[in-house]
Amino acid sequence: MQGPLEGIKVLDLTRVLAGPFSCMLMGDMGAEVVKVERSGRGDDVRDVAPQVGGESLYFLVMNRNKLGVTINFRHPRGPALLRDLVRHADVLVENFRAGTMEKMGCGYDVLKAINPRLIMVSISGFGQDGPYSNLACYDVIAQAMSGLMEMTGPPDGPPTMAGSFVVDYSTALYAVIGTLAALRAREHTGIGQRVDVALLDTAVSYLITAIPEYLLLGRKMTRRGNRDRYAAPVNLFRAKDGGWVYLAAGNDSLFPQLVKVMGQEEVLQDPRFATLDARMAHIEEGEALLAKWVENKTADEVVHLVREAGLPCAKVASIDEVVANPQIRHRGMIAEIEHPTAGRVPMQGLNIHFSHTPKQIRRPPPLLGQHNEEIYGRWLGLSVKEVAHLKSEGVI
Amino acid sequence: MQGPLEGIKVLDLTRVLAGPFSCMLMGDMGAEVVKVERSGRGDDVRDVAPQVGGESLYFLVMNRNKLGVTINFRHPRGPALLRDLVRHADVLVENFRAGTMEKMGCGYDVLKAINPRLIMVSISGFGQDGPYSNLACYDVIAQAMSGLMEMTGPPDGPPTMAGSFVVDYSTALYAVIGTLAALRAREHTGIGQRVDVALLDTAVSYLITAIPEYLLLGRKMTRRGNRDRYAAPVNLFRAKDGGWVYLAAGNDSLFPQLVKVMGQEEVLQDPRFATLDARMAHIEEGEALLAKWVENKTADEVVHLVREAGLPCAKVASIDEVVANPQIRHRGMIAEIEHPTAGRVPMQGLNIHFSHTPKQIRRPPPLLGQHNEEIYGRWLGLSVKEVAHLKSEGVI
Repeated sequence: MQGPLEGIKVLDLTRVLAGPFSCMLMGDMGAEVVKVERSGRGDDVRDVAPQVGGESLYFLVMNRNKLGVTINFRHPRGPALLRDLVRHADVLVENFRAGTMEKMGCGYDVLKAINPRLIMVSISGFGQDGPYSNLACYDVIAQAMSGLMEMTGPPDGPPTMAGSFVVDYSTALYAVIGTLAALRAREHTGIGQRVDVALLDTAVSYLITAIPEYLLLGRKMTRRGNRDRYAAPVNLFRAKDGGWVYLAAGNDSLFPQLVKVMGQEEVLQDPRFATLDARMAHIEEGEALLAKWVENKTADEVVHLVREAGLPCAKVASIDEVVANPQIRHRGMIAEIEHPTAGRVPMQGLNIHFSHTPKQIRRPPPLLGQHNEEIYGRWLGLSVKEVAHLKSEGVI
Repeated sequence: MQGPLEGIKVLDLTRVLAGPFSCMLMGDMGAEVVKVERSGRGDDVRDVAPQVGGESLYFLVMNRNKLGVTINFRHPRGPALLRDLVRHADVLVENFRAGTMEKMGCGYDVLKAINPRLIMVSISGFGQDGPYSNLACYDVIAQAMSGLMEMTGPPDGPPTMAGSFVVDYSTALYAVIGTLAALRAREHTGIGQRVDVALLDTAVSYLITAIPEYLLLGRKMTRRGNRDRYAAPVNLFRAKDGGWVYLAAGNDSLFPQLVKVMGQEEVLQDPRFATLDARMAHIEEGEALLAKWVENKTADEVVHLVREAGLPCAKVASIDEVVANPQIRHRGMIAEIEHPTAGRVPMQGLNIHFSHTPKQIRRPPPLLGQHNEEIYGRWLGLSVKEVAHLKSEGVI
């Protein structure tokens, strides 16, 4: 098999991040993914800077391993063409606002009548129902409304968003899980179903113990900089060369080992550090010990000493250090595509490793409508001439 | 079906977060998940504060919909008992350090000889191979080494971790995707395989355009507070009541609409704000306009006005506001379990919505070894007396 999902056909109607990333993962795992873009402009992020060779890097990193076709959804025959494709698909993924597919005559009720085996996956900000289902949403809005922003950043500073679109990415992963689970159910039931995932739901699922801590104990989880919530001392410390080092010596096994590395075993006699509870009650003092030890060494010296002892630690890496990291390189997490106009483009690799059905980058992201002839021919049986006619009529 | 994964048997040998959360999701979707804990202490987080009714909230929110058995892995007959369970399992998930399963005589080569249909999923910090594969790793270490921390926080402050263990959670999701994809491949090949996911790989997969921006353009993506990377003005603004409001008016469609809501359409004549490029070049000035408008209103007033116009915005919610949010409630994202010692425990709900195979909370997290009799009886055919004997011998 060219991947564990070989033979699955996916229609990707999505734009920007969560939807495109979910469909790309399915493509990475061997599915045939056809990205269906509005004719003319295509995916919103095709325009986003920075660009290389006339292509948006944002678009490129979200759309490898896909074929590309166009449809003019506003043309009277556009939605009908989409419904024709649906007859041949296992999965359709869309991330329009709730209700948009229905307005196009492509709601789930219509599509399942055409193809009862179809799995229709809807990705949205707030979900397909409920009082907010029609509101606009982005990743950071979900971070804000879920409490994740309130929990991120320094205690004396403003709420802070995560530096990447972690809710978008995570929602993409939930969408893939929903798709694969529904495919598995179809093996038993013979029929497809609707899968509904939402950015806000995703963010709420990531709140660790915040919900029961508040509702049972009345405690409001909030931001605490780089301190751990459940153990101490665990924080970021600044080395003499300006580098930041993360040290985690929170539990009763790690703390004694770290102070040994520091040559300060006498600290273990100090009741302020004898137990986790005591260390949590004396966080400042415990951190001060580590800070003082780190500030006289370079970040690399600290990392070397702590790692030698088998203890967890890391230097905060900037992107030049990330791409040079030997483990990241070894795992193939810096991959390359060869694109017809942008040339060789490095990007994140394929990060689920399968022993028997290896994944691979088989093709670069599509140009807008690049595979109209191939897909409308192979899936629908249209001739080159018929596809050209659709084009001249403005349907694709 | 009681969920799309009904009939799948999962052995969960994992501890703490990424592993337990991945297996819980499979349980949420209807799989029979048996959590196998070391006898005596069990999962490391059973001890973590805060506790309710003698149970750790951390443990409770990661382990619903599982049955629990114990094994003493250090007893000579412990690993053999695990191998007996493996004969009856579809999936085994473990998150020991690389090499630990092999040392127990339960490496993949051994297990696949016992059960060729087994899917063995290994979750680790750095993966099963490579120069760092034996190093200790936690969520925040992966955030640090991947560049995510460097990208999070204010430009003039230290690197900042996300306020939740987003890499752990996301790795859990990749593990579930790998499991389900391997189950799908097994339908075709008849055999299982090894799936290998790692925290560092996960974090690198979330870097948006950082890799090509650096390698192709020499730009180092770093932190920018709450500003968007690709559009402006987009940021957090403080209202007169101290609340923080996130406003996203970055693109050429949203910006004119927002200034209209603000009653400042004359701004559209200003060349500094006429295009996205111009707004990116004048971020401070654009943000100042919004800040001034927000500072004279309460956060709720701002949200009301902006939402009425159909534009994206959100107040940064604290956890009391999160649990009261009508959309979060409507979607069932605050769920409850009924636990024998902790009582009713609210927690995050089930956040993939399936139209035909609804998920449900069927059981609370297990007490340590609670289902020894049931599982060793039902899976292995052992009598109550035989299970009692294993217990008295110290094998379980």
